[in-house]
Amino acid sequence: MEVKVVRKVLDVNNTMAEQNRQRFAEKGVFVLNLMSSPGSGKTTLLEKTLARIMPDIRSAVIVGDICTTNDADRLAKTGVPVVQINTDGFGGDCHLAAHVIANAASNFNLETLDLLIVENVGNLVCPAEFDIGENARVVVLSVTEGEDKPLKYPLMFRVCDAAILNKSDLLPYLDYDIEAAVSNIRKVHPNMPVFELSAKTEQGIDSWLSWLRERVRG
Amino acid sequence: MEVKVVRKVLDVNNTMAEQNRQRFAEKGVFVLNLMSSPGSGKTTLLEKTLARIMPDIRSAVIVGDICTTNDADRLAKTGVPVVQINTDGFGGDCHLAAHVIANAASNFNLETLDLLIVENVGNLVCPAEFDIGENARVVVLSVTEGEDKPLKYPLMFRVCDAAILNKSDLLPYLDYDIEAAVSNIRKVHPNMPVFELSAKTEQGIDSWLSWLRERVRG
Repeated sequence: MEVKVVRKVLDVNNTMAEQNRQRFAEKGVFVLNLMSSPGSGKTTLLEKTLARIMPDIRSAVIVGDICTTNDADRLAKTGVPVVQINTDGFGGDCHLAAHVIANAASNFNLETLDLLIVENVGNLVCPAEFDIGENARVVVLSVTEGEDKPLKYPLMFRVCDAAILNKSDLLPYLDYDIEAAVSNIRKVHPNMPVFELSAKTEQGIDSWLSWLRERVRG
Repeated sequence: MEVKVVRKVLDVNNTMAEQNRQRFAEKGVFVLNLMSSPGSGKTTLLEKTLARIMPDIRSAVIVGDICTTNDADRLAKTGVPVVQINTDGFGGDCHLAAHVIANAASNFNLETLDLLIVENVGNLVCPAEFDIGENARVVVLSVTEGEDKPLKYPLMFRVCDAAILNKSDLLPYLDYDIEAAVSNIRKVHPNMPVFELSAKTEQGIDSWLSWLRERVRG
């Protein structure tokens, strides 16, 4: 019974995601779904990314959180249009769904945008199951989270197009084997692009920005 | 439709959780549900905790993960009986449910145990909604995850009886305001006990162990 309903929810979601994707394509907007555990540094990465790609790439952000507008407040300071979604309004959902994105996107004039970034709810499990109509999915993993996360949460790494290993500035203070982390990522997703960087210091951020620019313009 | 079914699932879970709780009480076993984001250091904390409380407190562990037996393999080295649950066998569940705990616990001779620790799936959202029949819930938050997580994931902090701020050995290398973190925890859960410690160096671990010992013997 539960399984059937969950399947139905996912089917409805997939249909709406496809509608989103068509609408975004018609308007020439590239949509990026950014996912991670809580506290991996998505918001800081976006602050630094937006500062570097604007105004060349005209961007907007949809931020998903269960509660608070902390992240939207931080991102609004970059000057980009931001819409915050709080999922506690509909049951504290642990992920963003396609219909929620459709509503949130109606706050933007899509004609004026090249890139729409969705900062998903901090959760390495459930958001991976919900297509929101994006063109690319990126997972952020903090090096403080350990090397084995790709093996323990394989679906997230399988569905994403690139992985970012963030907080590399902390590597000197951790027992972290970065080669093992990359190898684990590629065990579940062969040839996946991996960007080792520090959003805080911006070291290594250029390769990530090049990849993103190429995708948006491609 | 979806909401109704989810409620029914939670009702069934609550009934089974109550059965678990009675069964554990009859056998004199205290059950601790340990929850956190991925990579907050639950397994290292358990390794160090078990090394210090055994054999005084006769312990066993149930480990929940979507995939891999990494954590169970690590914990088995402490000498305690360990059962690993892989939720990918039943849909990649993002949490442990009461019936899963009932099955896993049947692998132990409960008569010989004082403490059963459940290391839940790494997820700061969904496990908070599922009673598994535990006597205490503890949330682990790594200081690398930022100060605002209690406000963004309030349910987890509301349902838990204590919070651990782990990886305090990294504080010199972070812009982390520990008073703000504790204040945010107590905004959603007034007077909650908070243990600042480093599972890696064991600094600060004694207060946590005293609290745990008191609860188990209580």
